[in-house]
Amino acid sequence: MVKVTGLEGVVAADTEIGLVDGEQGHLIYRGFWAKDLAVSRSFEEVAYLLWFRKLPGEEELRTFTQKWRSLRALPVSIRSVLELLPASVPMMSILQTALAAMSDDDLVWPPTTEQAMRLTAVVPTLIAARYRLLNGLPVVEPDENLDHAANYLHMLFGRTPDPAHVKALNAYLILGMEHGMNASTFAGRVVASTQSDLASSLSAAVGAMKGPLHGGAPSEVLVMLDAIGEKANAEPWLRGVLEKGGRLMGFGHRIYKTKDPRAEALRQVTEGLVSDDPWFELAIHVEAVAQRLLEEYKPGRRLYTNVEFFAAAIMRAIALPAELFTPTFTLARSVGWSAHLLEQAPVNRIFRPLSQYTGPMPEEG
Amino acid sequence: MVKVTGLEGVVAADTEIGLVDGEQGHLIYRGFWAKDLAVSRSFEEVAYLLWFRKLPGEEELRTFTQKWRSLRALPVSIRSVLELLPASVPMMSILQTALAAMSDDDLVWPPTTEQAMRLTAVVPTLIAARYRLLNGLPVVEPDENLDHAANYLHMLFGRTPDPAHVKALNAYLILGMEHGMNASTFAGRVVASTQSDLASSLSAAVGAMKGPLHGGAPSEVLVMLDAIGEKANAEPWLRGVLEKGGRLMGFGHRIYKTKDPRAEALRQVTEGLVSDDPWFELAIHVEAVAQRLLEEYKPGRRLYTNVEFFAAAIMRAIALPAELFTPTFTLARSVGWSAHLLEQAPVNRIFRPLSQYTGPMPEEG
Repeated sequence: MVKVTGLEGVVAADTEIGLVDGEQGHLIYRGFWAKDLAVSRSFEEVAYLLWFRKLPGEEELRTFTQKWRSLRALPVSIRSVLELLPASVPMMSILQTALAAMSDDDLVWPPTTEQAMRLTAVVPTLIAARYRLLNGLPVVEPDENLDHAANYLHMLFGRTPDPAHVKALNAYLILGMEHGMNASTFAGRVVASTQSDLASSLSAAVGAMKGPLHGGAPSEVLVMLDAIGEKANAEPWLRGVLEKGGRLMGFGHRIYKTKDPRAEALRQVTEGLVSDDPWFELAIHVEAVAQRLLEEYKPGRRLYTNVEFFAAAIMRAIALPAELFTPTFTLARSVGWSAHLLEQAPVNRIFRPLSQYTGPMPEEG
Repeated sequence: MVKVTGLEGVVAADTEIGLVDGEQGHLIYRGFWAKDLAVSRSFEEVAYLLWFRKLPGEEELRTFTQKWRSLRALPVSIRSVLELLPASVPMMSILQTALAAMSDDDLVWPPTTEQAMRLTAVVPTLIAARYRLLNGLPVVEPDENLDHAANYLHMLFGRTPDPAHVKALNAYLILGMEHGMNASTFAGRVVASTQSDLASSLSAAVGAMKGPLHGGAPSEVLVMLDAIGEKANAEPWLRGVLEKGGRLMGFGHRIYKTKDPRAEALRQVTEGLVSDDPWFELAIHVEAVAQRLLEEYKPGRRLYTNVEFFAAAIMRAIALPAELFTPTFTLARSVGWSAHLLEQAPVNRIFRPLSQYTGPMPEEG
């Protein structure tokens, strides 16, 4: 018996899905650099890669995309659940609720790619429908002509999305799909290890993502970008924080001790779009100034820009309300979760660690 | 880095709630023998023990019971969810769905005993209401004059329950409340470790309990008891199975290598009620014959009667439909889960194990 608080350093599973190497700044999805996929592929192509273990050919992609897009509409009963639950139920709990309710007698263990497509297809629709219902807006039905990112924006805002926003969001969503054995992926794997079905397991993963220690949102960076507001204010504002010994949000990462590959990819995408949106322009400028000042005030601290920094700029550019940040991350990660659950099924072993009893003993036998 | 399939033998947490010692046949709840609690205490008293770390005094029990019973009614929106989800959604998914939907802005981490009371109070009501709705029967409202076990039977069947059935069910439920770091308790702890709320965490635990590797029901024993039907058939039927080298259901246990303390307690309760129900009488007889024949056919194999054996007799006596076995187990275990989540909060550390990447590497850096 070995006790390991938080299971830190314990390998809970082998996986071929993703590698997170914080020392080297590597994020790999099934043999491909995530940062390359993010700038060159669609969300659909990368979902295909995670589920089917290879990038799709042209015909495979067409068939897959058509099928997945056809599954976006909400079942009538689920739509009704969204309507009747009170506004005080948080969006993440709505997702956890709705995914659990997507279970039925047919959805049996082991999970299939078909089931994964069905369950993940509705997540963006759930978010957008609930958001619009809460705001007294007519629900916008999914559009099969739009890709995953574009359709999400279409359903949220009811208008043709700006191509620059679609491009940036697509990259962000790809980079959010998978990140090793984090708490939500692990929660999903624990539930699935009992041979519980995919809906139950994904629902549980959402429950973990809901926790602020895990599904943390880029909202503190947003506060900073909002406060700076325009390029001319960047240097005095940032210098003001650093002079007072303060911390700059969006720089440094628990895992990545070198460049965060997700930030690298999002910078690349954002940089190419500076003329399309003032938030992208501001973000690129603020980052450059912040890096220069961090070198000046905290030399050698390796406070590289993290993914949250550019995520915040993208969230702001697409005008996503703060309460949708974690749900949007969740719609991306649901693809990674289901890939993990598909991977685990054939080699499944129930997760059943021990506890160490430290309570009192009965007085007599 | 150490890889441990299924985390077997890894201690994931200290706990003062329960000790399961399979070698010695011990099951202890906070310093008390579970088998003693099951025959001498009410479900409410033992829930109090698990949550408040001591047995209640008379006045404490009165206040606690009154409060807990007042929380049994379903919120209107949850009741509507039960009505509109199709019959194909399994009962365990209904529980997972409804618990997730019980989350609201007020239900924040860390969990409180108040929250635990609120969430666990509705579980029996959820099961009974959904069961009756599915069967076209009028929903029976909870009765605050009845204790946990009696009220559950009242809500399920709409009549005053037989005291012998209440007594047996009460013992079964107490013995189902807690059993160390099983997969569902662990799933709940993983979700709660992200500082996700109690509703999300309990919902996830239900998802794990749903899996057939975990929430296994005593249905195979039931098939046996049904096939035997009456005392006179017991010996020929059991001998017939053993002559063909078959296995007797309800005997032997993965963890308990000696007497299963839960079976011991349920035998004691059942034995005292043989004149009250023919199923109790049959069970006591079948067990005695089976033990004698197992000694004859499989000497030294230590195939002690397990909890499922007596659980099956009780389920049959109270006429519980098979699809409600795991949900009924769940209503008991929800108290233990919440005790674990209350215990974890003050010393919380996020569960974040590692995975070992075994996939391909990119061709170039």
